[in-house]
Amino acid sequence: MNRINELFGIKYPIIQGGMIWCSGWELASAVSNAGGLGLIGSGSMYPEVLRQHIRKCKAATNNSFGVNIPLLYPDIEDHINIIIQEGVKVVFTSAGNPKKYTSRLQSYGIKVAHVIANKKFAIKCVEAGVDAIVAEGFEAGGHNGVDEITTMCLIPMIADTVNVPLIAAGGIASGKAMLAAIILGADGVQMGSRFVASKECSAHINFKNKVVVAGEGETDLTLKELTAVRLIKNGFYNQIQKAYTENATHKELKDLLGRGRAKKGMFEGNLEEGELEIGQVSAMINTIMPVEKIIKEVIDEFESERNRISTLKF
Amino acid sequence: MNRINELFGIKYPIIQGGMIWCSGWELASAVSNAGGLGLIGSGSMYPEVLRQHIRKCKAATNNSFGVNIPLLYPDIEDHINIIIQEGVKVVFTSAGNPKKYTSRLQSYGIKVAHVIANKKFAIKCVEAGVDAIVAEGFEAGGHNGVDEITTMCLIPMIADTVNVPLIAAGGIASGKAMLAAIILGADGVQMGSRFVASKECSAHINFKNKVVVAGEGETDLTLKELTAVRLIKNGFYNQIQKAYTENATHKELKDLLGRGRAKKGMFEGNLEEGELEIGQVSAMINTIMPVEKIIKEVIDEFESERNRISTLKF
Repeated sequence: MNRINELFGIKYPIIQGGMIWCSGWELASAVSNAGGLGLIGSGSMYPEVLRQHIRKCKAATNNSFGVNIPLLYPDIEDHINIIIQEGVKVVFTSAGNPKKYTSRLQSYGIKVAHVIANKKFAIKCVEAGVDAIVAEGFEAGGHNGVDEITTMCLIPMIADTVNVPLIAAGGIASGKAMLAAIILGADGVQMGSRFVASKECSAHINFKNKVVVAGEGETDLTLKELTAVRLIKNGFYNQIQKAYTENATHKELKDLLGRGRAKKGMFEGNLEEGELEIGQVSAMINTIMPVEKIIKEVIDEFESERNRISTLKF
Repeated sequence: MNRINELFGIKYPIIQGGMIWCSGWELASAVSNAGGLGLIGSGSMYPEVLRQHIRKCKAATNNSFGVNIPLLYPDIEDHINIIIQEGVKVVFTSAGNPKKYTSRLQSYGIKVAHVIANKKFAIKCVEAGVDAIVAEGFEAGGHNGVDEITTMCLIPMIADTVNVPLIAAGGIASGKAMLAAIILGADGVQMGSRFVASKECSAHINFKNKVVVAGEGETDLTLKELTAVRLIKNGFYNQIQKAYTENATHKELKDLLGRGRAKKGMFEGNLEEGELEIGQVSAMINTIMPVEKIIKEVIDEFESERNRISTLKF
């Protein structure tokens, strides 16, 4: 696990997922100040908004932080330029080809991690020379891979395939899950859902409260024909299901999704019409806490669980 | 983990899944002789065949073994009677209401475990008074729950909900995964796919070889409208996919499945027309081994991984 700590210069190998509408400078700086790695989620920001978040984050923490960029983002060149201009030291990329920006970012001394959901893309990451890989399981919230490989199966497979610092994501919201992920072969973990239910998350309070009350079976991975996304079953989700029942075409699904659904749900708090992206592990998240307390709780549980299993006997 | 060992009187908290067409007396007795709990998979046996397997298993091992019964099985009353007559000490039930047979079996001194895939059914198990619960994640092979909850999310949730000896299943084929499952809250593990790739498994060698070569993304959970089942993507699977594309009705899907598909694939070795039930973790299984060696490898890895993490420092 030291590989992740050393790579990013952080105390704990805990990365906060850079989630759209949820991960502004307040969340990212709070995580970095608490010893993890905070990530600004640039996928929901205009370029100049991103610049302001980076500047505020720099002012709020002396520790490492980074920016997450979905490579599908339309203004991506502007984002890349701003990241370089503002001297950001860490970039997490996802949803695209890792070859596209890795070496350019690295030439400015930026550490680059890329998010994958299968072995095939892990190998592409190695070929692209990334500094770290995030392997994200089927249970994760938001956009997700097509192979539906769960964290339990994905992490050992990726750890056996590549020799790059490995961050596990999907289903991790506790110290026990963090320890389990490290045993499965990860060097560190990325938590998304848990940090949505934080005081510092920029999401609407309605969405945070929805995450807290969500129980088992209340998320689903859907819209697989467009870009598969795990979201909470709400009014919008029911509309999708209805469209499937009526054998909707690709275009009809796309029109139904429309634009701005995620903003409407997660940022504006419209729980019925909006898209509410969250992981299965939301079923285990029951309270909104300050980031510092979340990280302390995770690390304390990690340590006490490690002690417990050291005394188990067959 | 002592709760599972004590309950079943076994050395290691490793249960071998009682899988149709795969788990006859040879596999079950080999697992029990190696210190785990072997289960005869009665779901593919006529009553008198089951009786023969039980008798042969008793002759082949002095250790505890059990029988798995899917509660949907048509001749279930005969199976229950045979199990009682033959003095079987452990029964694992699945796919049905745990209230139906638990107390009757227990009145004969039989320990009863029931397989579930969500919290709702775990609570039903407690109400039914089961001795143990198997919580099976989305990644598991064969028939599976509707909520698609992965092992990583399911185990801590069930462990938090009920206080019954808990066996984790789905995605577990190694000592690392076993340790991870115990950290997540399980007392023991059930492994299915790994034991399919054993010398003693009764499946056709073609199926075992297929499991060995299967890579990532080669299984899918499908036929959700009938009874969701995870199987290898083969010719039969492609027919299902084609039927979906053509908006097949429930009846058309049922007709396509027909009868005897699982036998054809797993027992007769028809890899194209048969149904090949296996877990996602098949991607990590690369060799057919004797059961004794599998269990030794799992336990050795469990111990060495436990030692490794005891020295990790942040």
